[in-house]
Amino acid sequence: MKILILGAGGMLGQKLVKQILKSDFNSINPSEIYLFDLYFPLQRDIGVNIIKGDLGDPKQIKKLATKHFDIIFHLAAIVSGEAEENFEKGWQINLFSMWHLLEALKKEHLNSSAKYVPRIIFTSSIAVFGAPYPDKIHDDFLCAPKTSYGAQKASAELLLSDFSRKGFVNGISLRLPTICVRPGSANKAASSFFSNIIREPLNGKTAYLPVDTEVRHWHASPRSAANFLIHATTIDSSSLNDRRSLNLPGVSCTVEEQIEALRTIAGQKIVDHIISKPDPLIKGMVSGWPRNFLPEKALKLGFKAETNFEQIISTYIADDLE
Amino acid sequence: MKILILGAGGMLGQKLVKQILKSDFNSINPSEIYLFDLYFPLQRDIGVNIIKGDLGDPKQIKKLATKHFDIIFHLAAIVSGEAEENFEKGWQINLFSMWHLLEALKKEHLNSSAKYVPRIIFTSSIAVFGAPYPDKIHDDFLCAPKTSYGAQKASAELLLSDFSRKGFVNGISLRLPTICVRPGSANKAASSFFSNIIREPLNGKTAYLPVDTEVRHWHASPRSAANFLIHATTIDSSSLNDRRSLNLPGVSCTVEEQIEALRTIAGQKIVDHIISKPDPLIKGMVSGWPRNFLPEKALKLGFKAETNFEQIISTYIADDLE
Repeated sequence: MKILILGAGGMLGQKLVKQILKSDFNSINPSEIYLFDLYFPLQRDIGVNIIKGDLGDPKQIKKLATKHFDIIFHLAAIVSGEAEENFEKGWQINLFSMWHLLEALKKEHLNSSAKYVPRIIFTSSIAVFGAPYPDKIHDDFLCAPKTSYGAQKASAELLLSDFSRKGFVNGISLRLPTICVRPGSANKAASSFFSNIIREPLNGKTAYLPVDTEVRHWHASPRSAANFLIHATTIDSSSLNDRRSLNLPGVSCTVEEQIEALRTIAGQKIVDHIISKPDPLIKGMVSGWPRNFLPEKALKLGFKAETNFEQIISTYIADDLE
Repeated sequence: MKILILGAGGMLGQKLVKQILKSDFNSINPSEIYLFDLYFPLQRDIGVNIIKGDLGDPKQIKKLATKHFDIIFHLAAIVSGEAEENFEKGWQINLFSMWHLLEALKKEHLNSSAKYVPRIIFTSSIAVFGAPYPDKIHDDFLCAPKTSYGAQKASAELLLSDFSRKGFVNGISLRLPTICVRPGSANKAASSFFSNIIREPLNGKTAYLPVDTEVRHWHASPRSAANFLIHATTIDSSSLNDRRSLNLPGVSCTVEEQIEALRTIAGQKIVDHIISKPDPLIKGMVSGWPRNFLPEKALKLGFKAETNFEQIISTYIADDLE
């Protein structure tokens, strides 16, 4: 399998590469791996091809498409906070670069005698949903995003689904839970505090909490997210019946419960690093975010995540804490 | 009120102009009316401004935006059958022209000292939905289109909603039932047979039925559709809570029930003009279409339609049969 990862320089991209390179993931069986991104963190040579480039440039996308990758993981995005600040840039990268990618792949499909149909695994987000919600969001619930990021992801899902229905590509959109605990430094995602309040204290640093502790949200670890992406390549997409956007399993818990799990694992002294510092902008965005899901379809398809927040913290300690 | 109707040359556009010009529609109180379309049917001067133009041309859209219309009715579309045949054209007109329009209006908003915010009434469609369905589609049901037309309308709704949330425009998307009975000749919409089997017999002509008589679908008359558009201009959009796409009231009935209503009103001899002629392509498309709705939100907002198919036929006879 010839594999391309768009947005491979990001946190999830790096996790995904590591998982793919582990020998026990025979489902993908990679022959060549290409990583594409604007920037890559400094790293040792791991035997993969690195392409520095801009997904906002249709010419570069066309060139990529000619390489006929079997699997394309599309992780590249302008994250929620930045898409809200920079309206134009968000729509250009999060929606229109998807259009250019799909158009380029469609052209390869139509021009290839072997009827080239790449599998595309697209990281969508639970930000496609907007309040009010039922207690648990079921698989038939409407997309009514309350952020530009969510609207862009929902539109890109529709594009991917229609190009797939026509047989030009074979796409699946994964509505990832909020990834927690993110290693490294905070990004511009409005959701990054959910990770900060665990990661920073565990590293002996102060973390600011911009929302109330009653806020409930939906989480999965970076390891689970990488596993979702890999598992998605194995699904028989004809069974999806043109509903190619999946709500994934995760852990529903409040910030209070996150902190309680941290206290159980690391003690009160570590918890004392969390300082309340309300932020009206983030509070407003988060108030429209999902709290809990009933992801029946994804569970039936074999997607698996953690079942409580202590497991999520333990995964961070095992995989990322130095 | 300065009014623009995009796609004004089409059947619904013409109905809308007539309704607006009736003096009893004080809610709109038009000062100037501009009609924009590629083509207009031959018609007498009715005291409105006619602009022949192409919505696929961003320059023309920009020029229109500078006129600062108070209300923009956006009815222009590549219809379902054509969008399925001509994939590129469908996406360009049904999605990307919406982007260019909204971008142009946003620029006017940002550059105007008076904070220009036009009201946009966009004709979306029940084609945003895809089977399987509950018995009645409720207001929280997901968009999972099974045609390119439906995917394009659903994406355009997301654009309109996000530009509205940001305050650049004030948009509402109306998911119109299938308009029945359409006067004039058939268009390329795959749904046009629902009208043909009533209109053609009433005009003494043969009509071909491409699907089984058990097919159930969701209808409203052209008069109701024009009234929906006008009523939408009166809604307090802040009450919509960022859910700006509305499922509208209509009549759910089978083709059998349509024919029975025609028999009641016009007799068996008229019904004998309907000839069964199965079309696998249309059958396939129609099998994924909605059959019935529970449009609680729109009913609460005061939208009204016919309550049975005989009323729909009577409306056609009163408004359009010569």
